[in-house]
Amino acid sequence: MPNPRWLNEREYRAWLGYRRMRLLLDAQIARDLQRDSGLSEADYDVLSALSARESRRWRLQELADRMLWSKSRLSRHVSRMEERGLVTRQECADDGRGAVIVLTAQGLDAIVQAAPDHVESVRAHLIDLLTQEQLDTLGDIAETVLHHLGAAIQ
Amino acid sequence: MPNPRWLNEREYRAWLGYRRMRLLLDAQIARDLQRDSGLSEADYDVLSALSARESRRWRLQELADRMLWSKSRLSRHVSRMEERGLVTRQECADDGRGAVIVLTAQGLDAIVQAAPDHVESVRAHLIDLLTQEQLDTLGDIAETVLHHLGAAIQ
Repeated sequence: MPNPRWLNEREYRAWLGYRRMRLLLDAQIARDLQRDSGLSEADYDVLSALSARESRRWRLQELADRMLWSKSRLSRHVSRMEERGLVTRQECADDGRGAVIVLTAQGLDAIVQAAPDHVESVRAHLIDLLTQEQLDTLGDIAETVLHHLGAAIQ
Repeated sequence: MPNPRWLNEREYRAWLGYRRMRLLLDAQIARDLQRDSGLSEADYDVLSALSARESRRWRLQELADRMLWSKSRLSRHVSRMEERGLVTRQECADDGRGAVIVLTAQGLDAIVQAAPDHVESVRAHLIDLLTQEQLDTLGDIAETVLHHLGAAIQ
C-alpha cells in the first residue's frame, strides 16, 4: 500500500474521541451498574434481552450471536447466572437446536430493580449531556455504521 | 426512585445505536486488524502508545491506568508481547516506581506495518461513511463526555 490515506485532524479527533469515550464511558456505566445493582454489563444484557421478549426466552446460540460471544462463553456465563437464580436453562432435545435460556421471576425482578438506576447512569454520563441535535446525529451515525455492517440498530 | 426518567424514543435510539455500533464496529475493526497484521486491539493499543512517545517507553502502571486495565493484567499481556519480541521490560528498582515497557525495533516495525491497513479499516467502517458535520459532532460528543468524566480526548 504505497500511499496510506492517514486521517486528517478532523477525522483523527472523531476516531480518537470515539475510542476514548467508548473506553471510559462504558467503564463508568459498568461501575455504576455493579455498584447499584450487583449486575455486570453482560448480566444486564442477558436479562434485558430476555425481558424484552414476551416469551422471556432466547435460544443460547441466537443470544450468543447477538452478543458476539461464543456459545461456550455465554453458556458458562449463563451457568453462573443460573446459580444466582436469575435464569434457567432448558434443553430442547426434540428439535436438535440446543439449549434455551429462560428468565426466572427473580431475574425479572432483578432487571426491574436495576433499570431505574441504570437509566439514570446512562442519562448522567451521556444522554443528558447532549443536545437534541447531537442525540439525533449519534443515532444517525450508528444507523449508518450498522447498516454498512449488515446489522440493524435493534 | 419513584419516577424513573425513562429514555424517550429519540434518546433510546441514540443510546441503543451507540451500544450496538460499539459492539459491532469494534469487533469488525479487531477482526480486520487480526487478519491483516496478526495483532490484537490490545497489542495495537500498547504499540501505538509506545510509538507515540519519543522515548518509546511507558511505565507499566501508567499505561495500565490509561487502558483501564489492572497492572497484573497488562503485565501478563506485556509478557506475551515480550515473547514475540515486540517490547521489552525494564525494572526501575532505583526509584521504586516499578516496571517500564520499552518498544523494540521489531515492535516499531510491527506497528509501522500494521498502521496503513488499520487506517483503511477505520475509514471503511466508520470515517468514510460519515459527513464532515457528523465527524465534527462525534468529536464534540466525545469531548463533552470525556470532559464530564474528567478525562482528556487524547
